[in-house]
Amino acid sequence: MENELNVVGQRLPMHDAAAKAKGTAQFTDDLTFPGMLHGRILRSPLAHAKILRIDTSKAEKLPGVKGVVTGQDIPDRLYGIVPKARDEYALARDKVRYIGDDVAAVCAIAPEIAEEAIELIKVDYEELPAVFDPFESKKDGAPVIHEGIKNNTSFAIKKEFGDVKKAFAESDAIFEDTFFSQAVNHAPLEPHAAIAQYDPLKGEVTIWSSTQIPFFLRRNLSNTLQIPESRVRVIKPKVGGGFGQKIDMFAKDFCAAWFAMHLGKPVKFIYDREEVFISTRQRHPMYITVKTGMKKDGTILAQKFQSYADGGAYNSTAPTMMALSCFFLMIPYKVPNLFYEGYHVYTNKPVGGAMRGHGIPQARFAVERQLDLMAGRLGLDPAEIRLKNSIHAGEPHSAGFVINTCGFSESVKKAADAIGWKEKRGKLPFGRGVGLAGASFPSGVSNMSHISSGAVVQVGQDGAVNVLSGAADIGQGAETVISQIVAEELGVLLEDIRITAADTGITPLDPGTFGSGVTVRAGNAARLAALEAKEKLFEFVAEKLEANPEDLIAKNREIFVKGSPGTVMTIKDAIKGYQYADLPMPIVGRGSWMAPTDEPTTLFEQDGNFAPNYSFMTQAAEIEVDLVTGQVKLLRMVTAHDCGRPINPMLVEGQLEGSVVGGMGQALYEDVIVEKGQVMNPSFLDYGFPTFLEMPQIETIGVETDDPIGPFGAKEAGEGTQLSPAPAIVNAIYDAIGVDFMELPVTPEKILKAMEEKGK
Amino acid sequence: MENELNVVGQRLPMHDAAAKAKGTAQFTDDLTFPGMLHGRILRSPLAHAKILRIDTSKAEKLPGVKGVVTGQDIPDRLYGIVPKARDEYALARDKVRYIGDDVAAVCAIAPEIAEEAIELIKVDYEELPAVFDPFESKKDGAPVIHEGIKNNTSFAIKKEFGDVKKAFAESDAIFEDTFFSQAVNHAPLEPHAAIAQYDPLKGEVTIWSSTQIPFFLRRNLSNTLQIPESRVRVIKPKVGGGFGQKIDMFAKDFCAAWFAMHLGKPVKFIYDREEVFISTRQRHPMYITVKTGMKKDGTILAQKFQSYADGGAYNSTAPTMMALSCFFLMIPYKVPNLFYEGYHVYTNKPVGGAMRGHGIPQARFAVERQLDLMAGRLGLDPAEIRLKNSIHAGEPHSAGFVINTCGFSESVKKAADAIGWKEKRGKLPFGRGVGLAGASFPSGVSNMSHISSGAVVQVGQDGAVNVLSGAADIGQGAETVISQIVAEELGVLLEDIRITAADTGITPLDPGTFGSGVTVRAGNAARLAALEAKEKLFEFVAEKLEANPEDLIAKNREIFVKGSPGTVMTIKDAIKGYQYADLPMPIVGRGSWMAPTDEPTTLFEQDGNFAPNYSFMTQAAEIEVDLVTGQVKLLRMVTAHDCGRPINPMLVEGQLEGSVVGGMGQALYEDVIVEKGQVMNPSFLDYGFPTFLEMPQIETIGVETDDPIGPFGAKEAGEGTQLSPAPAIVNAIYDAIGVDFMELPVTPEKILKAMEEKGK
Repeated sequence: MENELNVVGQRLPMHDAAAKAKGTAQFTDDLTFPGMLHGRILRSPLAHAKILRIDTSKAEKLPGVKGVVTGQDIPDRLYGIVPKARDEYALARDKVRYIGDDVAAVCAIAPEIAEEAIELIKVDYEELPAVFDPFESKKDGAPVIHEGIKNNTSFAIKKEFGDVKKAFAESDAIFEDTFFSQAVNHAPLEPHAAIAQYDPLKGEVTIWSSTQIPFFLRRNLSNTLQIPESRVRVIKPKVGGGFGQKIDMFAKDFCAAWFAMHLGKPVKFIYDREEVFISTRQRHPMYITVKTGMKKDGTILAQKFQSYADGGAYNSTAPTMMALSCFFLMIPYKVPNLFYEGYHVYTNKPVGGAMRGHGIPQARFAVERQLDLMAGRLGLDPAEIRLKNSIHAGEPHSAGFVINTCGFSESVKKAADAIGWKEKRGKLPFGRGVGLAGASFPSGVSNMSHISSGAVVQVGQDGAVNVLSGAADIGQGAETVISQIVAEELGVLLEDIRITAADTGITPLDPGTFGSGVTVRAGNAARLAALEAKEKLFEFVAEKLEANPEDLIAKNREIFVKGSPGTVMTIKDAIKGYQYADLPMPIVGRGSWMAPTDEPTTLFEQDGNFAPNYSFMTQAAEIEVDLVTGQVKLLRMVTAHDCGRPINPMLVEGQLEGSVVGGMGQALYEDVIVEKGQVMNPSFLDYGFPTFLEMPQIETIGVETDDPIGPFGAKEAGEGTQLSPAPAIVNAIYDAIGVDFMELPVTPEKILKAMEEKGK
Repeated sequence: MENELNVVGQRLPMHDAAAKAKGTAQFTDDLTFPGMLHGRILRSPLAHAKILRIDTSKAEKLPGVKGVVTGQDIPDRLYGIVPKARDEYALARDKVRYIGDDVAAVCAIAPEIAEEAIELIKVDYEELPAVFDPFESKKDGAPVIHEGIKNNTSFAIKKEFGDVKKAFAESDAIFEDTFFSQAVNHAPLEPHAAIAQYDPLKGEVTIWSSTQIPFFLRRNLSNTLQIPESRVRVIKPKVGGGFGQKIDMFAKDFCAAWFAMHLGKPVKFIYDREEVFISTRQRHPMYITVKTGMKKDGTILAQKFQSYADGGAYNSTAPTMMALSCFFLMIPYKVPNLFYEGYHVYTNKPVGGAMRGHGIPQARFAVERQLDLMAGRLGLDPAEIRLKNSIHAGEPHSAGFVINTCGFSESVKKAADAIGWKEKRGKLPFGRGVGLAGASFPSGVSNMSHISSGAVVQVGQDGAVNVLSGAADIGQGAETVISQIVAEELGVLLEDIRITAADTGITPLDPGTFGSGVTVRAGNAARLAALEAKEKLFEFVAEKLEANPEDLIAKNREIFVKGSPGTVMTIKDAIKGYQYADLPMPIVGRGSWMAPTDEPTTLFEQDGNFAPNYSFMTQAAEIEVDLVTGQVKLLRMVTAHDCGRPINPMLVEGQLEGSVVGGMGQALYEDVIVEKGQVMNPSFLDYGFPTFLEMPQIETIGVETDDPIGPFGAKEAGEGTQLSPAPAIVNAIYDAIGVDFMELPVTPEKILKAMEEKGK
């Protein structure tokens, strides 16, 4: 009883569910300010060109236009999320590098006028030869996209763990296969938006932005606007999904702030859907060759992995993405010897960036597909081969990850059982099949350059608990999960918690929402802050109840003495008593958390423990191929997931289901089609991601481990599950029709073509 | 050097000055929310009547109307700022008590529709006899305004200090005079407004209100809506002046919340100017008789004071107001023996409430006028008589006030010198004169029922300092002053401070803005919070600089060792170093402050030390009477003021100048004219407060004392100066034309009539 959890582990609705359902929740575009102006961005119609001259005079003369800005007007400051990979200006200065590149911006009294005005800006371009294929791009003599970047290869990583040559020599079977994973768009329901306001007295810019990382946006704005960080305040309103696409700063952020500063009026920028598709970020298309050496029994001895990421015109998070795809090859399977080489290559196309899974889904597709291929070649069972190579808690990891808890092999077994592996694999009628694939994902990144997560918990006289957290809820429920953690620690109910988050002018530091680190990082910070507040109350209560503070337990709005549940004081009385004591201090607890690791990886330069902990998961898919239309229907997806102890199983399930659908989209439906640099399908209709009609039956199976580092045992649940639906589905397609697809997406055309060839 | 202040004491513009000047600052009416509805209140056309029946059916049927509420629909809960004096419903239940009383409210999709709908509500009244004069009202047999209140006298206070009978017997001269001070309206530029929003999942009402006291509003809403305090969040946007008028909860607050809860939509109420005049609050008209016993040399031996306040229809802050007018008779002069009796009498008229000075200006008018009368009768100089009776620091006060610092006699001397007292008094040509009057005011109230002021100071990685304070800036500059205090204590600049205040969902507890306590109370809390944050930094820096933390001084963004200014670390480096230490905690300081007094007065029941400290001031006026038109022109007003050490002399001057003009309005221009309960002049045009054209030359003279309790020695500066401009001006009129006016305002008509009588 005393150790049972009250709030953590409950299936509770998100704290802002009603506000969102009723339309009262305020997203950036819902905000208006007196005298607000509206901005619009002029984008490049050419894939690669020098900017010779920009004539803004006609635009400036249009009645209602208040300002025009070009790359020549702004500080000469590159930006980018990874300092060493900065290669982008808020507005292009000398040249444009893809169709959709930001060229100039207009600010006017109405969005329609701004729209009209950008058409009046005359840009003289000198068109340059463009390159759209990374293999062409990396050739000597290819058009130079960024000066000084040899072979357009902006980032290369080569790493060897163990002795690959020796291990290949000891292998019974070595096979090499090549795979391709396409470009997909995050397609968040809320387009990217920003509103900025400037206070000339304080010299302070306040920006409301649909961002995942307020504190990093603050840094990027400070750098590009050339004003101190302390003069930039970033507020994140409700955000309608990000999936990684809202990690970067964009022209809308910079230009809103720029115009606000120069015009002294609030300025709003809202991207339209086409801009979101073309001019924000997408998942990197990746070409991957995997060579694997195995023993006869399926034990992996070595892998050689070569990947080429088609980065598009800029770096964005390239180094991180490449590093992730490398390090996570050694988990969830033991790969004692690995040689990895990866190249990030510029092309004159839309820009690749962080997206749910961030470089790992592409690698996972290759590896999990190849595991099935290898199993077939060696006559082994794909589920068995995964169990045989599974990593376990406490086992060493080639790059130094510390794995305290690991439910991977259990997840393989449970997913296989649930899908009916033994009865179905290889035994279903032609056109129907099952497949599975595994994965692991970090709960954030250990090395955050000293950017810890902070939290402040104030317990009010009214019994309400006001929590300040820097964490950025972008729809995933971070605020609810943090509130549950605080409620549990303080012994109150979720409804007693009020949370204010992600406002750099009010809340403590937080790195933001990426890499699935929020629950562990911000959750631990909030728990520590709640603990500190509770300790203050406990000192007071212990005296009143004549007990030791260590013997007190707070639960369900009461504080009682361990082993003596009758000796009790309500938390309300405790607060009142504390407040009525001689000098009533506000009850304020503060917390801060970074991953406790002596040697965290620095991603590119040093191996080490990448994350505070790691989640593990297996997807098992059952599919049916329509042999007439070529359409693949995902009938059922089992997702067995070790996210430690789930803080809110309902929200975890929501994340898993979203990831499954995202992975299904990548497997079967989605593809950003680019022809000569032009995106051909930049709308929801043409892009065609899966809708409610395509939803499979999804069965989520919890594989609970009680992680010692996560708050109340929690690990990530936000994106790991999106790593492997695609290989699971494509593996199942093989089981259904005996065709091994090596490229994504597996469209009806490809199915029909393959069937035709098979027929021959 | 080391002890000099850097930020405190500087003439710095308010931190939100630019935002207000440019129109980007958001007042309640500037806020809009998606789907917002608009409310309007139906008011009583009768001064006193039973409500027999309210038919809302026609109003409900008007297209666009979303809801109608009457007093019968709402919880049976009286409210009021003083718990024991609660006598008001948010909407009248059984009867109306004045013209303008709140009867019903309508909520519609547009303000115009709400306006139209209230005219469709049919109320059947049974008119009752009404009473408009407090002396009529307190008679036996007068109409009963509130059941159970004998003689319509809702509050009476009788107190004797010393032995008045004996002191009168020992007096050389005893005179009794009667005075009247009229009703005036606060007339804040921003009308009263509220917007409420409801979250059905959390059961939480959020209200944005033009309020002076967010935490008390929360309590009153909780009580009247019958939901827990923790389910009410009050946010104060920018407020355009309050002067006491925005202390009470009003129907707009309750009804906005009620409709938001019942309709599930955001609801806005904005009062029009007529409503502000008639249906909010005004300064109590007061009839005062003073009997004073003096020795021949002018030493006051005893006073007997009888006052009748015309309260209008409800109590509002009546007990506090009466207590203030009583206790502050014993300061700034020594009154060793005092008998006070005061009565608060209901009438069927607009409601009296807190207003700048709060009960004291009326008493001060009587006392300061009578001092001049007595001086004349005894052949003494009015300035001398004030100096003779002046209280001094450390001297006992009849009711137990503890006076640590007192610049009163210095203020008399300086004001008299500056106005040219010796050269001018009694020596100017007929029609021109000088007069003076003194006063004292508390810096807030010591006994706040355990409602302390709290503050949280967060020092961010970017070098910005984020301050959370519950204090409610209503235009006086509280946020700027608190920021200066934090900047000084932390050794940074004002521009490094960002403050978030007066949001019960984010900021710590604070009693609110009244009684001029904000600077001392919230300023001390903020200083303590800054100190705690600084101490954390100092521990770190002391180690690095190999010094004792006690020897460190923070100033001008640097921390250096006392006596060794070369041993220094910038605060930025200190923050960075602290943050980069092993477990980088957020640098968070918390503070809380209540007046340190063992026996604070409980206002009505117990004497004691009323306030943490007391300000002192003297006004000296020079006026000219136009003998043809009867118009009095205030040529010059000297205001010598001991507000301890001013945190921001420019803001202090702004307060003093505003107070002078307010007092001049009361002396010469303003009067809420009521005929049979009907306010006859409820508009800026008809009410006719002084404008820029009437502004006198104002000379403010600082009388600095370094108070041991106020932050950096500060005392109140917000309202004390409004206590005595009226008697100073009327005393000067006597000097000019030899007529003793006993009633306010001294209009041209009264001047001409007096001159005519004098001519006879």
